[in-house]
Amino acid sequence: MRPSNTPLSVAEFQDLFDRLSRWGRYENPDRGAWNLVGPEQAKRGAGAIRSGRVVGMALPWNTVAEVDNPKPALHFMSDLGDVEPGQPTCNKDFIGIDYHGKSCSHLDALAHIAWQGQLFNGNSSAEVVGAGGASFGTVGALGPIVTRGVLLDLPAVRGVDWLEPGEALHAEDLQAAEDFAGVRIEPGDAVLLRCGQFARRRALGPWDSGEASAGIHADAAPWLHERDIAVLGADGDSDVRPSPVPGVHSPIHVLSLTCMGVPLLDNLDLEALSQACREEGQYAFQLTLAPLNIPMGTGCPLNPVAVL
Amino acid sequence: MRPSNTPLSVAEFQDLFDRLSRWGRYENPDRGAWNLVGPEQAKRGAGAIRSGRVVGMALPWNTVAEVDNPKPALHFMSDLGDVEPGQPTCNKDFIGIDYHGKSCSHLDALAHIAWQGQLFNGNSSAEVVGAGGASFGTVGALGPIVTRGVLLDLPAVRGVDWLEPGEALHAEDLQAAEDFAGVRIEPGDAVLLRCGQFARRRALGPWDSGEASAGIHADAAPWLHERDIAVLGADGDSDVRPSPVPGVHSPIHVLSLTCMGVPLLDNLDLEALSQACREEGQYAFQLTLAPLNIPMGTGCPLNPVAVL
Amino acid sequence: MRPSNTPLSVAEFQDLFDRLSRWGRYENPDRGAWNLVGPEQAKRGAGAIRSGRVVGMALPWNTVAEVDNPKPALHFMSDLGDVEPGQPTCNKDFIGIDYHGKSCSHLDALAHIAWQGQLFNGNSSAEVVGAGGASFGTVGALGPIVTRGVLLDLPAVRGVDWLEPGEALHAEDLQAAEDFAGVRIEPGDAVLLRCGQFARRRALGPWDSGEASAGIHADAAPWLHERDIAVLGADGDSDVRPSPVPGVHSPIHVLSLTCMGVPLLDNLDLEALSQACREEGQYAFQLTLAPLNIPMGTGCPLNPVAVL
Amino acid sequence: MRPSNTPLSVAEFQDLFDRLSRWGRYENPDRGAWNLVGPEQAKRGAGAIRSGRVVGMALPWNTVAEVDNPKPALHFMSDLGDVEPGQPTCNKDFIGIDYHGKSCSHLDALAHIAWQGQLFNGNSSAEVVGAGGASFGTVGALGPIVTRGVLLDLPAVRGVDWLEPGEALHAEDLQAAEDFAGVRIEPGDAVLLRCGQFARRRALGPWDSGEASAGIHADAAPWLHERDIAVLGADGDSDVRPSPVPGVHSPIHVLSLTCMGVPLLDNLDLEALSQACREEGQYAFQLTLAPLNIPMGTGCPLNPVAVL
Repeated sequence: MRPSNTPLSVAEFQDLFDRLSRWGRYENPDRGAWNLVGPEQAKRGAGAIRSGRVVGMALPWNTVAEVDNPKPALHFMSDLGDVEPGQPTCNKDFIGIDYHGKSCSHLDALAHIAWQGQLFNGNSSAEVVGAGGASFGTVGALGPIVTRGVLLDLPAVRGVDWLEPGEALHAEDLQAAEDFAGVRIEPGDAVLLRCGQFARRRALGPWDSGEASAGIHADAAPWLHERDIAVLGADGDSDVRPSPVPGVHSPIHVLSLTCMGVPLLDNLDLEALSQACREEGQYAFQLTLAPLNIPMGTGCPLNPVAVL
Repeated sequence: MRPSNTPLSVAEFQDLFDRLSRWGRYENPDRGAWNLVGPEQAKRGAGAIRSGRVVGMALPWNTVAEVDNPKPALHFMSDLGDVEPGQPTCNKDFIGIDYHGKSCSHLDALAHIAWQGQLFNGNSSAEVVGAGGASFGTVGALGPIVTRGVLLDLPAVRGVDWLEPGEALHAEDLQAAEDFAGVRIEPGDAVLLRCGQFARRRALGPWDSGEASAGIHADAAPWLHERDIAVLGADGDSDVRPSPVPGVHSPIHVLSLTCMGVPLLDNLDLEALSQACREEGQYAFQLTLAPLNIPMGTGCPLNPVAVL
Repeated sequence: MRPSNTPLSVAEFQDLFDRLSRWGRYENPDRGAWNLVGPEQAKRGAGAIRSGRVVGMALPWNTVAEVDNPKPALHFMSDLGDVEPGQPTCNKDFIGIDYHGKSCSHLDALAHIAWQGQLFNGNSSAEVVGAGGASFGTVGALGPIVTRGVLLDLPAVRGVDWLEPGEALHAEDLQAAEDFAGVRIEPGDAVLLRCGQFARRRALGPWDSGEASAGIHADAAPWLHERDIAVLGADGDSDVRPSPVPGVHSPIHVLSLTCMGVPLLDNLDLEALSQACREEGQYAFQLTLAPLNIPMGTGCPLNPVAVL
Repeated sequence: MRPSNTPLSVAEFQDLFDRLSRWGRYENPDRGAWNLVGPEQAKRGAGAIRSGRVVGMALPWNTVAEVDNPKPALHFMSDLGDVEPGQPTCNKDFIGIDYHGKSCSHLDALAHIAWQGQLFNGNSSAEVVGAGGASFGTVGALGPIVTRGVLLDLPAVRGVDWLEPGEALHAEDLQAAEDFAGVRIEPGDAVLLRCGQFARRRALGPWDSGEASAGIHADAAPWLHERDIAVLGADGDSDVRPSPVPGVHSPIHVLSLTCMGVPLLDNLDLEALSQACREEGQYAFQLTLAPLNIPMGTGCPLNPVAVL
């Protein structure tokens, strides 16, 4: 068995990038791999529904600073029935969040990550993103999708509670999880990768998941490319940390978002989904992604919803 | 034909409230009418899917003050590739919003509205809502639901582009729209009410929709009660404005949220949904609501998603 | 008498800029004209104190959208004695503001305004300001100053309640006000210009002061240059609007901040100061500016304090 | 020598409270001890000026979560010259902060602290503070003051770099520092207490100053009462921590704000002031406090300014 987190040189990484690139593939590059998802995929998703069991995946809005939450979310009450006059009285609240990072379940749109200054399809980040937001690769351009989701449940495959931080997943690991799921991932499907991060966090407490987390090794990207997925989600942020590529802190972010145009879902709580899949005996389900409509946003907090 | 917006006295309103009350009905009152939605309703929703056409309903995040947007949303870039060091570079953003009001598509949880100091099921607003947020009737308690949605498309019924602000809808209007939809609303269904507000806004510009908007008259609440719906959404905020009940600014909010425990969806952009329903020849669809998981929140911005 | 707001061509404006430039003058260009203020100027300020009367100049924090407040300030309570446990109980609040604009009394540091891409002293705005903030010309670099302030009280000079929006002030107007003040402005002094904007606003209600406000014509900049002031404040934002220079929306901002390195104070409430000066018979006073210490900020809200 | 942090029972504390109370003393109780500061005190402040040396005291705006900064300040750029069209281009920023706590130099107005539900002068906190803010004891009511400040420089008295966290200061310690300062504190003066907290932090790194910090023991409150000061500031938050009074987390906050009506200044950086006082040979100076004008605020971030 080879060591989990084998280094990959920047040259090898760049070669992977060039080989897997989906630049120029889509008429509407703003939406990247979401171009693969249309009515047929929505119906394939619905076709996976058996029991009607519904599972959300959003972590709780976390307003408390912790080692894995250095930019706490804001939540303030703007009315407690004492501001707007008359009857009825209203309770109202303000929310705010700098949502990219390790603590909020969120979607990364294609505007989020630039490799050597370029976003997906070769758009110059400096040209299409400014103080007012992004004009390419936005969450507003993505809009909602409904497709089939498949859970790759690594701890379930291995019969453990969680993978240890730092463990890197290769093509054979993903393949084993697909086999375990008993479903062949098809173009336009969503892949959700569970490493058990929040089972571990609940048991052992928070750690700096930016320093160490289980996730996908860059060398597994061709497997994802071959499956031609529409979106990749994880209970971490898909990238194994520390990174196997020297000087490249998030190679899977680059290969997924920038190279292949595949949006990411970070920091999903997949514990309830794992339990539901096990109990229902199915690892495929309808997945609905309903991002906020932020015209110039690089992503947004969201709550992915599975129906089994 | 009776005048549209006939006054209703506070005594009559209170009588309606008492008659329609669902207090004490649910073992888990936190979720109110979402208790009506389980796996069977999710499957009924999925059963409405024909073409696989997907439609979102969230208005764009509006950062510009307007007559109907006095509390503009915030959207700031927190990284433009020049803050977090190394490669890849990241574009990141902060979003913030005081989302209740007339400009953001959002969900009202049961903690939002108190009648005479009481939330749904008799909970004292002063006791269960404080500066830290709510401990009853929260959006976190609601979680996601999947059910069948039915569009009541009033302008389509009448062959007009929109209803004029101030027009009040009575039971017979809702009935006509249900007949037009060709589907009988069942317990646990979601009802979405289109008055054409955003068609009008796009054509004529914004107006103060807090002062005048088409919506449901309190006297139609028994019709909603009889249908036993799980959630009510609208392109306005469901209430006709000005209010027909003197001194009660939002009677439908009270009857829906506080009396019947039915969460609301405000400020939905239903124009694309209306077009899709017309083109697909169906006014029922799968509806997924995927609210943010804010444990102490009174609601949240969200993007309802229909699959036809 | 020449018309108030005579046009000035861009070429003439650029010529003014070149003629008045203070680029290269200061060893520490970050602080621009605040280099002129040291212990001697602080003592000169203190020397102006007679009665000990203290006057602040900050407008109230305005959380309500209005025609002259399109980006309302935020103010939320984060604790009402019910969040932090134990005794005593605490009331706490969050404040937030995008303070540049027309509604908040604030300081413009040298990082705020770039002419043809350049900040004061020729620094490239694109190079020294990014998503993380500014590294040149910041409010943190300015720090507090104490100096002598002189009120140029135009309505008092003319015996009117206020100047009408759009009225442009030329060198002879400033000279008349200095004569009226009975004090010769010296290098390192602060000049505060009252046009009566908030007297007018209180009497007649708000208007779009970005469209029309009384202020200084670019042709008066040489007068300010000759006086060699450290800071220029106004009840508007010092610029007459509409601008007399075609295509240059804020010529005084450019000439003051970018060309001469003179920080600005915008939207000061000078009504109480005017009354105090009149009553005390003195138009010079000690002025203390105590900006927030925001290391990468382009300015900040503040409350200038005069002691007469 | 008695142990530094001798326990004080709640009964003894309540007795102190009753004995030192200034309730009913002021015609305008909103401003508490700032009623003691008028033109004469401003002139006394100015009279302390010798060299004209100006010193600010605000800590840098801290946007990074740390053990003593669990609610990081926000600072986002809202324009980088690419949002507002035309020339000149503008750099603009948004700031936000939940400023009470241990990381931001700020003013506590009388609305901040309630003892057994009551603010200064017996106002019920629940009645005068709500979601919209406070209507008694606000920073807006305080406004700016100019008075004489006296630095009680404990490390200088003792010839050490800083006091250790947890060290409690009694009347004799304050007396020794007043003697060292060589000036008799008079009614309406401001007292600034230096324990060397930020010298220690710069040398040793941050610690949880809410758990342990040097500060005043409740038994020294009569000394402050006798001096009849207008405001008390410190490089910590004036309270020794842990608290000597069981179950009362901030006894000096209660005795100062709630009992005596003396506003507090928390988290001041007094290192530069200490150096200036030592070098100039004077521990009294003019002090200007220029709070933001937040009509319903319980305090605000600010930058106190001394002139020596």
